[in-house]
Amino acid sequence: MKKGQYNKITDVPGVTVGHVTIDTEQHKTGVTVVMPSNENVFNHKLTAACHVINGFGKTTGLTQIEELGTLESPIALTNTLNVGLVQDGLVEYMVEKCRSEDVVLKSFNPVVAECNDSYLNDIQVRAVKQSHVIEAIESASVDFAMGDVGCGKGTSCHQLKGGVGSASRIVELAGEDYTLGVLVQTNHGRLHDLVVDGKPLGQIIMGTKKYEAHRASMDEDISLDKGSIIIVLATDLPVSDRQLKRVCKRASVGLARLGSYIGHGSGEIVIGFTTAHQHNSEDVILEMRQLKEEKLENVFQAMVSAVEEAVLSSMLHADSVTGHDGKVRLALKEFL
Amino acid sequence: MKKGQYNKITDVPGVTVGHVTIDTEQHKTGVTVVMPSNENVFNHKLTAACHVINGFGKTTGLTQIEELGTLESPIALTNTLNVGLVQDGLVEYMVEKCRSEDVVLKSFNPVVAECNDSYLNDIQVRAVKQSHVIEAIESASVDFAMGDVGCGKGTSCHQLKGGVGSASRIVELAGEDYTLGVLVQTNHGRLHDLVVDGKPLGQIIMGTKKYEAHRASMDEDISLDKGSIIIVLATDLPVSDRQLKRVCKRASVGLARLGSYIGHGSGEIVIGFTTAHQHNSEDVILEMRQLKEEKLENVFQAMVSAVEEAVLSSMLHADSVTGHDGKVRLALKEFL
Amino acid sequence: MKKGQYNKITDVPGVTVGHVTIDTEQHKTGVTVVMPSNENVFNHKLTAACHVINGFGKTTGLTQIEELGTLESPIALTNTLNVGLVQDGLVEYMVEKCRSEDVVLKSFNPVVAECNDSYLNDIQVRAVKQSHVIEAIESASVDFAMGDVGCGKGTSCHQLKGGVGSASRIVELAGEDYTLGVLVQTNHGRLHDLVVDGKPLGQIIMGTKKYEAHRASMDEDISLDKGSIIIVLATDLPVSDRQLKRVCKRASVGLARLGSYIGHGSGEIVIGFTTAHQHNSEDVILEMRQLKEEKLENVFQAMVSAVEEAVLSSMLHADSVTGHDGKVRLALKEFL
Amino acid sequence: MKKGQYNKITDVPGVTVGHVTIDTEQHKTGVTVVMPSNENVFNHKLTAACHVINGFGKTTGLTQIEELGTLESPIALTNTLNVGLVQDGLVEYMVEKCRSEDVVLKSFNPVVAECNDSYLNDIQVRAVKQSHVIEAIESASVDFAMGDVGCGKGTSCHQLKGGVGSASRIVELAGEDYTLGVLVQTNHGRLHDLVVDGKPLGQIIMGTKKYEAHRASMDEDISLDKGSIIIVLATDLPVSDRQLKRVCKRASVGLARLGSYIGHGSGEIVIGFTTAHQHNSEDVILEMRQLKEEKLENVFQAMVSAVEEAVLSSMLHADSVTGHDGKVRLALKEFL
Repeated sequence: MKKGQYNKITDVPGVTVGHVTIDTEQHKTGVTVVMPSNENVFNHKLTAACHVINGFGKTTGLTQIEELGTLESPIALTNTLNVGLVQDGLVEYMVEKCRSEDVVLKSFNPVVAECNDSYLNDIQVRAVKQSHVIEAIESASVDFAMGDVGCGKGTSCHQLKGGVGSASRIVELAGEDYTLGVLVQTNHGRLHDLVVDGKPLGQIIMGTKKYEAHRASMDEDISLDKGSIIIVLATDLPVSDRQLKRVCKRASVGLARLGSYIGHGSGEIVIGFTTAHQHNSEDVILEMRQLKEEKLENVFQAMVSAVEEAVLSSMLHADSVTGHDGKVRLALKEFL
Repeated sequence: MKKGQYNKITDVPGVTVGHVTIDTEQHKTGVTVVMPSNENVFNHKLTAACHVINGFGKTTGLTQIEELGTLESPIALTNTLNVGLVQDGLVEYMVEKCRSEDVVLKSFNPVVAECNDSYLNDIQVRAVKQSHVIEAIESASVDFAMGDVGCGKGTSCHQLKGGVGSASRIVELAGEDYTLGVLVQTNHGRLHDLVVDGKPLGQIIMGTKKYEAHRASMDEDISLDKGSIIIVLATDLPVSDRQLKRVCKRASVGLARLGSYIGHGSGEIVIGFTTAHQHNSEDVILEMRQLKEEKLENVFQAMVSAVEEAVLSSMLHADSVTGHDGKVRLALKEFL
Repeated sequence: MKKGQYNKITDVPGVTVGHVTIDTEQHKTGVTVVMPSNENVFNHKLTAACHVINGFGKTTGLTQIEELGTLESPIALTNTLNVGLVQDGLVEYMVEKCRSEDVVLKSFNPVVAECNDSYLNDIQVRAVKQSHVIEAIESASVDFAMGDVGCGKGTSCHQLKGGVGSASRIVELAGEDYTLGVLVQTNHGRLHDLVVDGKPLGQIIMGTKKYEAHRASMDEDISLDKGSIIIVLATDLPVSDRQLKRVCKRASVGLARLGSYIGHGSGEIVIGFTTAHQHNSEDVILEMRQLKEEKLENVFQAMVSAVEEAVLSSMLHADSVTGHDGKVRLALKEFL
Repeated sequence: MKKGQYNKITDVPGVTVGHVTIDTEQHKTGVTVVMPSNENVFNHKLTAACHVINGFGKTTGLTQIEELGTLESPIALTNTLNVGLVQDGLVEYMVEKCRSEDVVLKSFNPVVAECNDSYLNDIQVRAVKQSHVIEAIESASVDFAMGDVGCGKGTSCHQLKGGVGSASRIVELAGEDYTLGVLVQTNHGRLHDLVVDGKPLGQIIMGTKKYEAHRASMDEDISLDKGSIIIVLATDLPVSDRQLKRVCKRASVGLARLGSYIGHGSGEIVIGFTTAHQHNSEDVILEMRQLKEEKLENVFQAMVSAVEEAVLSSMLHADSVTGHDGKVRLALKEFL
């Protein structure tokens, strides 16, 4: 399938991404914010949906997305224990934004997702502050970094270094090109299970001298999948909230293709939005467009393919990282 | 049905409740914490469930409760924009608690629910700080106050003053007494719809001179239900997470009995737990007890009855409150 | 609120209802079919949703409605053990219909809901045959009968005679009138709980000599709610499947207003559709209209009010019925 | 992982499977029944759960399984338009069974799942009758046939001949062996996507002369996944209904490993039960055992592995079949 210009979620017009990375001896963590449009999203809500693959996670904001089918917040990703402060950062940002634009804000549904980076990061000290969220938002751009940055600084993927990954696909419908983009914060999977293009790459790596030496220094039960993955889907396709949810559900296939079996300890959440509709009209009746249902077939394939590549991308762009306790996550590229 | 000693949620053994009330010219708000047991709940998880009546709300922690069927956090209630800081307060509390008890904590699912008290409270300034959460926890007791206190300081119910209410019922099963207790943060309903014991109390109040005078000074569209309600259910009944969810679902009947129709703008969430099971065993297989399904019949009736009384109680215990913009919520007792 | 011309579900343009009643010594049962439009609904699918209040029931077709948001079948109501034959009757009908119209049919999602009429009906012998379904469809009209007819011949409501009820409400939006109609098959509730307009009618009836004499002849545990209720919602409002589901959820408030607490044994299911959209277009992108979310407020009120009246109507239109074992369900009107 | 004696679902003690195959010029279809225990399952209900991967299907019985967490019926699998008659067959069977055992049956939740075999079968004529269901039940055994038999006679998998497949895995916990077994009715997937052990077997087959010759004679859009898959999970593991649902959810990983992306048109349903608990006790409080949550890790892996093998098995055991219109599904073994 055709890819977008950057092969990133930002190929969807209006979408930008910003990071703040906290990289100290004690902390390998950060925050990444997906800005869903160029407008004030609180005032220009977007059609949205979510899907919980495995609910062992702490994402906020899903209940309202499910009820109303709309997104009214940037989507922030961070570490597990930092969800509260990052949520407060989003509130601070949006209160200011709305005040400056004379928009009344009394209620607001901030969306914060998380992965647990405690293998490399001293997670009990919540290193990400409200100001970092605002900084990440202000730095948002189209051509953002991937790998061990932002919310992905301290995360792991298939027991190698994971982080932030992204990919996009172009879907042609009735002669028009639409874009589907994905951003992931990867923190799931076992090395033993990693499969790339049908090859058992994880097991090959486990057989190398380099890995054996590394393994001797590890203090980890490698038989467990103790991670999470957050998947953000953006698109400009004319789909309803229900259809968007169906697309979100296909994310798990992308994970399975790289070998994940969706472990018990892995909080896996998908959040999707489309920029196709206008929700802030003055009209009593809104005009919504949605795809003829069977036309989702290609969209599903685009989703699976983009998720698979985004996860792999998060690993390929990451460098090895040594954490606060001296633990090390090796980069995939050290074995290629 | 028989009621417990205090006719409060704290009739369930081990359950305590603490408030911090913020009552300044600018702020009518606060935080209320339900402590689900005498033990460290992170280390002694409880069987739990939740039910979303109307998802136009920002409660955190539901996804994991749904997935794992357990509660590992005190339940904190506050105002809508304060969810982030209160969540961080719970993290701070639990990190310290676990450190002092040598319990490893790397992940934690804080549960924070909210109502929107912006009619009386300057909500954009998040007045509730992390330290207030810890203070509320430390003050938790069996015989807590109701009405316009804690998380209920600034909330409304049927367009009169609402707040915190509670009630309990005793359910006899096989010769043993079990307790079901409910705590509510009320912020929902229209005055016009208020019905008590089948009498249209709301319409009667609307016909009084006192109300007419008050009405003239109000600046509010009274045709809309713009509120929320949070309902916490505690019990020591031997029920599974699925059964607990069925009990949670009956809460809406209690609301309807007082006249609510579950308005669009009303985020209505039920969170329930039972203290009946041991989850922190070393054993691979846990012994769980659950009611024969048809025995839930009485439990459902207890739930409906307790919710109805708790909501009414939140109104009966509240005094009139004047908010930051000079707006007033009159107490129900001014009309009795 | 304003009511439609017939104050029935058939006030929604295109909707008709047909019954076949089986009234023999052995059988008090039947089938009722709601025809959702004047067109072949398989070929002209309608936007649809459903909501399970209490899932102790055997309704078919909900999974696909949930996934695709569309209805492609008439909705048939019958007794619990007759679901299979009635479903086959719908298949037979639709296969013939499509053959005669040159429409290709290889898959089809028949919707059959049920209540348990075994108190009056010999349910193990499935008295409703495929041909009855087709007969009911062919007899469908705008001005259908209510009470102890069709699927309601043998059902009970609040331990009096229930059956089929209906009501409609007019909702004005942006200067246009829309209709919301409800049809119910009632079979739920305890007499003790029956409340009408705030009056404890059930308890009043239980205190009458007539009831006492009747009670002596009954062989029934009147402390249990062992019934079900099916609620069909039809409208021409421009609402999405998600919005329709929100409307469906308000049905339980209508039930609670008459005293139900949603008993354990009571399978309570709501199925809703709107005729507002065109799904059979050749276009790749469908034009859908949906209400601005806050405009649902009136629709919710209409739903609650229509359900309450439809349930009461099912009782008011029913005559007393004596069942196969000599058991009797008295009509409400015997006490008025 | 270790496999059971037969490497079939019947390795779970008490589980048997029976088929009736209808193999005429006009019909390639049938019915397969999974008998969940040696006892009358209506009277000895089993803990159960279900999961809808893709709801474009007509399975009956899921609503009650979801609500009550129990199975009270054999599980029958058949073709899409035959669900009604097969459901009536289950009712007939259970009414007789209960009558002969003096068990009162007034309500009953039959479980029937389906795939669409219309590519090979004249589906509009419902060839499977009630008597076939009873015949299948009576013929149920431990060592049942796989491939193009019973409900799988007419189904396709990855555009080759699919059918019935099965596999089992042994899970060791605390020194004891438990069994997890899976039975599938396969009817999903595109040939292009078929991957076995990481090899693109589908694409390899598409490049053969044999396939090219076959392709020329086909009249099918091979770019679409127009199928379904039904997955039945049986186990004797002590798991709760919630845990069973978590296991059911991992089925999709097994499908993805063979290349499926969960197409739009593919109704994919998982139904699971465990024989570990006693629900028919006279006691008010039932003793239930459940696994410590993290012990599900191995169970998830067993599920994924069993589903993957069962799907492949359905193809490996099938012979080529020529359908009513002369269309042909080639067997996988013709290419090995």
